Amino acid sequence: MKKKLINDPENVVVEMIEGIVKAKPSKLRKLDNYNVVVRKDAPLDKVALVSGGGSGHEPAHAGYVGEGMLDAAVAGDVFTSPTPDAIFEAIKTVNGGKGVLLIVKNYTGDVMNFEMAEDMAVAEGIEVAHVVVNDDVAVEDSLYTTGRRGVAGTIFVHKIAGAKAAAGAELSEVKKAAEKVISNVRTKGMALYPCRVPSAEEPTFKLEEDEMELGIGIHGEPGTQRTKVKKADEIVDDLLGSILSDINFENGDEVALMVNGMGGTPLMELFIANRRAHQVLENRGIKVYKNFVDEFMTSLEMAGMSITLLKLDQELKELLDAPTDINLMK
Amino acid sequence: MKKKLINDPENVVVEMIEGIVKAKPSKLRKLDNYNVVVRKDAPLDKVALVSGGGSGHEPAHAGYVGEGMLDAAVAGDVFTSPTPDAIFEAIKTVNGGKGVLLIVKNYTGDVMNFEMAEDMAVAEGIEVAHVVVNDDVAVEDSLYTTGRRGVAGTIFVHKIAGAKAAAGAELSEVKKAAEKVISNVRTKGMALYPCRVPSAEEPTFKLEEDEMELGIGIHGEPGTQRTKVKKADEIVDDLLGSILSDINFENGDEVALMVNGMGGTPLMELFIANRRAHQVLENRGIKVYKNFVDEFMTSLEMAGMSITLLKLDQELKELLDAPTDINLMK
Repeated sequence: MKKKLINDPENVVVEMIEGIVKAKPSKLRKLDNYNVVVRKDAPLDKVALVSGGGSGHEPAHAGYVGEGMLDAAVAGDVFTSPTPDAIFEAIKTVNGGKGVLLIVKNYTGDVMNFEMAEDMAVAEGIEVAHVVVNDDVAVEDSLYTTGRRGVAGTIFVHKIAGAKAAAGAELSEVKKAAEKVISNVRTKGMALYPCRVPSAEEPTFKLEEDEMELGIGIHGEPGTQRTKVKKADEIVDDLLGSILSDINFENGDEVALMVNGMGGTPLMELFIANRRAHQVLENRGIKVYKNFVDEFMTSLEMAGMSITLLKLDQELKELLDAPTDINLMK
Repeated sequence: MKKKLINDPENVVVEMIEGIVKAKPSKLRKLDNYNVVVRKDAPLDKVALVSGGGSGHEPAHAGYVGEGMLDAAVAGDVFTSPTPDAIFEAIKTVNGGKGVLLIVKNYTGDVMNFEMAEDMAVAEGIEVAHVVVNDDVAVEDSLYTTGRRGVAGTIFVHKIAGAKAAAGAELSEVKKAAEKVISNVRTKGMALYPCRVPSAEEPTFKLEEDEMELGIGIHGEPGTQRTKVKKADEIVDDLLGSILSDINFENGDEVALMVNGMGGTPLMELFIANRRAHQVLENRGIKVYKNFVDEFMTSLEMAGMSITLLKLDQELKELLDAPTDINLMK
């Protein structure tokens, strides 16, 4: 039974949401009876953005609710999709009449529940669209998905669609910007140690004391290769190798590079990985336009990381640089 | 032997520093032959701020080099003071003629080496002063200190002295602002799980599977109480209780509240703790002016947290709110 800094496994999500809202009381509020964080000034006169999913991936997604990013984040139980009811409440709260874009990570439960909520909202006359993020190059189908999983690349969808919406674009244009990110973003992750869901007796998977797993998902879903622990540089080479062989890069291309900690990884290790990622990209003639090294999409206390590349064009660069009050994405 | 995302234990600091500088190539550079990160535009026409200490506490201190905070950070080996030579190089590099303030955490080795570097710089005609941060209320003397240890409260000294220097204050005034923070800031930490130094076979301390330690330091130095694991709320009550009985607070006082993860603690747990911290402070009539919840001063992958309160007055509020390009402290 792993030790955790919690009160009761049954209450972790609601207590966490209360703690998040307390940290930014002038900007965020929690919906009564729902684990939904919304901007305090919502609805605004713009297309609204709603994302969410199971909890345990903090700061995703409530940490991205703010100016130039999300208008609401819906938190399910740990590693469990939020209910259509909660998503529907979020949509109704943030809709300012210009429509709502749902940003969904590709997991079967999430896609189903966000689509149900979309149907409920459309039935009430709200204009809603959705995009499904599937940036994980590791596996085609997984324990919880048909097709590729949605992981850390989702944060770039939040940022860029959020900037487009803030600039006054219509729903169809915001959706198109989100889809451009989705077609340009790729991620692969790995783990040294598993995590444990607060209510569970056992970790979500097991690794021997000399083993690691490549291509792992953010819920500890199996990856592509269980292997002896490699050096950080070899691991980075593997992750970036998979990404670079999945999407066409040309000499001189510019990217956003995200080195994402999975929750239990010290920053020291992320920066060691970041150093190698720059070497690999320089060798390939790819220019890092913007570099993000921190925890963006975690898996409780799992030790490991993911690397994400977003291929940029002029429009994406401008939207990536657009103002936001989310410090992580400045 | 714990698994780590590194290449070679001997190279972790230099590789990490290279990764940090790569992340902000337009703003930071590394000094040749020294593990020192400096602002690329240094020296500037202002009092310069230098901090540092052993590595393994990232983002401290290189993560705080930037506009409105530090001008240089000197990184020693893991949990080991930097050498006087490296500190002296940092001082010479950032001194713009208005003098240099050294911000030192209270550990015997750090204090000795920073003072030696100060002497070397003064001998070359550079105006230097130093402050020693000792915010940890847990123990009076410890394994590595005479007097109280310097821990997460140091970040508030960086921020406030940095803002004072950026505003054009003289060295004596910048030092005075730093000393005001030091007299107004208190921290206490705890751990559920230890960390391991990359070159070591064993963790820095051991806890049974149902044990935690209160009052622990950022190198795993012994705390005040080893106890059965308590609920998050009880832990927060203990940490804040110690802080609130150490410094006089009156009804209506305003504070900056920092809930700091030790490196291996998921954000979910920090926000659960943050919720309780607000409840405790509200009950005491203390107002949270600004709230920081993240990893600020870590101990490799140690699982645990610290809570810091900084008692504010009008001057400290203004300096805390002054511009910086360090996202964590915005």
